[in-house]
Amino acid sequence: MVTITALDTFDVRFPTSIDHDGSDAMNPDPDYSAAYVVMRTDSPDGLSGYGLVFTIGRGNDVQTAALAALEPRVIGRRVEDIVERLGDFARQLNGDSQLRWLGPEKGVMHMAIGAVINAAWDLAARRAGKPLWRFIADMTPEQIVDQVDFRYLTDALTPHRALEILRAAEPHKKLRIAQLEAEGYPAYTTSPGWLGYTDEKMQRLARQAVDDGFRTIKLKVGLHLEDDIRRCRLARATVGPDIAIAVDANQRWDVGSAIEWLKPLESVGLAWVEEPTSPDDVLGHAAIRRAVAPTPISTGEHGQNRVLFKQLLQAGAVDLIQIDAARVGGVNENLAILLLAAHFGVRVFPHAGGVGLCELVQHLAMADFVAITGKKEDRAIEFVDHLHEHFVDPVRIVKGRYVAPTAPGFSAQMHPASIRDHLYPDGIVWQGVAMAADR
Amino acid sequence: MVTITALDTFDVRFPTSIDHDGSDAMNPDPDYSAAYVVMRTDSPDGLSGYGLVFTIGRGNDVQTAALAALEPRVIGRRVEDIVERLGDFARQLNGDSQLRWLGPEKGVMHMAIGAVINAAWDLAARRAGKPLWRFIADMTPEQIVDQVDFRYLTDALTPHRALEILRAAEPHKKLRIAQLEAEGYPAYTTSPGWLGYTDEKMQRLARQAVDDGFRTIKLKVGLHLEDDIRRCRLARATVGPDIAIAVDANQRWDVGSAIEWLKPLESVGLAWVEEPTSPDDVLGHAAIRRAVAPTPISTGEHGQNRVLFKQLLQAGAVDLIQIDAARVGGVNENLAILLLAAHFGVRVFPHAGGVGLCELVQHLAMADFVAITGKKEDRAIEFVDHLHEHFVDPVRIVKGRYVAPTAPGFSAQMHPASIRDHLYPDGIVWQGVAMAADR
Repeated sequence: MVTITALDTFDVRFPTSIDHDGSDAMNPDPDYSAAYVVMRTDSPDGLSGYGLVFTIGRGNDVQTAALAALEPRVIGRRVEDIVERLGDFARQLNGDSQLRWLGPEKGVMHMAIGAVINAAWDLAARRAGKPLWRFIADMTPEQIVDQVDFRYLTDALTPHRALEILRAAEPHKKLRIAQLEAEGYPAYTTSPGWLGYTDEKMQRLARQAVDDGFRTIKLKVGLHLEDDIRRCRLARATVGPDIAIAVDANQRWDVGSAIEWLKPLESVGLAWVEEPTSPDDVLGHAAIRRAVAPTPISTGEHGQNRVLFKQLLQAGAVDLIQIDAARVGGVNENLAILLLAAHFGVRVFPHAGGVGLCELVQHLAMADFVAITGKKEDRAIEFVDHLHEHFVDPVRIVKGRYVAPTAPGFSAQMHPASIRDHLYPDGIVWQGVAMAADR
Repeated sequence: MVTITALDTFDVRFPTSIDHDGSDAMNPDPDYSAAYVVMRTDSPDGLSGYGLVFTIGRGNDVQTAALAALEPRVIGRRVEDIVERLGDFARQLNGDSQLRWLGPEKGVMHMAIGAVINAAWDLAARRAGKPLWRFIADMTPEQIVDQVDFRYLTDALTPHRALEILRAAEPHKKLRIAQLEAEGYPAYTTSPGWLGYTDEKMQRLARQAVDDGFRTIKLKVGLHLEDDIRRCRLARATVGPDIAIAVDANQRWDVGSAIEWLKPLESVGLAWVEEPTSPDDVLGHAAIRRAVAPTPISTGEHGQNRVLFKQLLQAGAVDLIQIDAARVGGVNENLAILLLAAHFGVRVFPHAGGVGLCELVQHLAMADFVAITGKKEDRAIEFVDHLHEHFVDPVRIVKGRYVAPTAPGFSAQMHPASIRDHLYPDGIVWQGVAMAADR
């Protein structure tokens, strides 16, 4: 009998603010960080599960404390009970009434629960010897439905309707797996578009992105309108008419200012406008979308849970959505969101970048292609070429497309040396930052 | 020059689950707790500010860690700078881009920020020698508008419109203060209604509530429909036709099940139905309200921030709202919510109970009466007669009404002995619980 013996947590931070990587209109100086969790077992082969919450620096200690608070719910449990009933495991963690009060189902505690759930999925996929996308794809429609907590969803999506969607995919799975393994999954890149970059750097990286095979790039906007207009036009001139350009305002505007700001940008021909306002504002997104149509509106990387996504879709507030692998309640809640999107016929462009988000979310998009929607060429997973070297099984991008992972698990495992060196505040990298600041 | 010298934090818990006090359909065994914070200064008179986040047990350590994470934003700052520009102080804490990522503006980090902001208001009111309600009431309309972060609100409420509301109240303030001091503010009580109580205990406490002068009582519902019908009818038979009965489902239902459940309860004549479904579900509340009209629908005690309240009001999703003094971003965000409610003409029935929530929220309701709406007899503040003995300036209820506090501050300060004895896990009370469990 194999049991969970430990839930080890690590406050891992990268001093990215020094080079303005990841800077946008709301986040001028992020230090990309991970509250990292390892679910250890007493299996003789060293079987463990890995998960993380992505943060941008301060507060990563609080996020790590939230992971540690879940120890009593996990340690001593039989691995078999967890990996064979991942839906029950997720419901138990989310259903802890005392912890639920701290959200409910949102913020620090919910993200911690999501990371531990993701670590359990990683463990389950490793144990099965499959990459996570394939582990999900090989489930029956009934098994997938069992993963989802339909509480608060049934006015939009019932288990019966979810089964219909999943059963329709069933006969095509084998072919889709072959397609995915042969073709990969489209990526888009945000690498050129950080707000702290000069025009020249942006143009150089945009040209590079096209040369590398990307068909969509994304620019950060929202700080100064004239800069945005100039940068968008420069980007269009650089990449030509056939490359899609999306913009991301990172929640910068009120409803009225979003509408005003987006008018002069209309001529650029935007693929979508991401996070024009508060991620909580369902009615606000709907109002903006109506006012700036046909410019497509999207949100979701900060979407707190399935109830928010349900409403965005019910209200017709978005043309497409982002999902994030490490903000909601783990794989289970993301399956709910993917099924909702499929039901409403809305495309998903997963959010990635940060620390490990590309590694994680690719599995969800690929599982969606095989087991849910059967679509990938009309959508793309975000890609930022950043910090992948710290992962044991980093994403592989070939000609602007994610290559389907083959190693077992959820790809979240970091190299021990990366963890050790970037521990905050005592890792050697942070000692170096402190010394440089003292000079 | 007086400066902030420390932000001391305490994990304080009360073993309330032993007697089922506070039990409801979603929270069967709460241990009422406070992540408690003291903002200390080097003022010779010992001036300090006190704040807290209410939780129901597990995770109170995480909430306490989130308070401690705010130390670097506070320690060493001049008290004068903070108390004279509380709006800027709140915007600075909420605007920390790295911490904001952990919500944004919701969950553990947002509640911690709210408690520290509340501690600063407590400090400011103590320094001014006024109870907080009076400290707010004595501000000019312009000063109150300066407290509010209008970001994400301007499609519903502009600073200009807020000023109109506040200026209309200005000539009546003196009279209202006199009225408040003479009459108090109506209370309603949830003491009879906890789900773990027997019918007999519920009836006895309901009778007692009426004898004590309360005009509204509230019962918990949502676990078993037949129990709810029986309990509501028994309560109606006990209190007679002139006492209002509200029910609280604590987020138990989906949209469809809420509508079905509420039909057999209609004949009881409910004053309102609280939290019928997810607190995040604006569209869901609107759908329930339309379907069960004229039964009034409410929510808000778990409302994460002003953006959610804005939408509830924009969508016509509620007949009334609850506010909570310790869930959103402190006094500043609650002023935003009170102004939104005033603009939309929706009554506020503040949530209380827990640990210190009555003590805190009374000030907000009273400030609303004097400086914003001028209304109190068509609304009421929740009251639960529980744990008040641990506070230095506990609420006073006379004939079913809150007596306006006269001591300076926000009434959140706890007795040092109460903190010491209930520290988790090493306080003497918890040592006793552990010993009893070992027997």
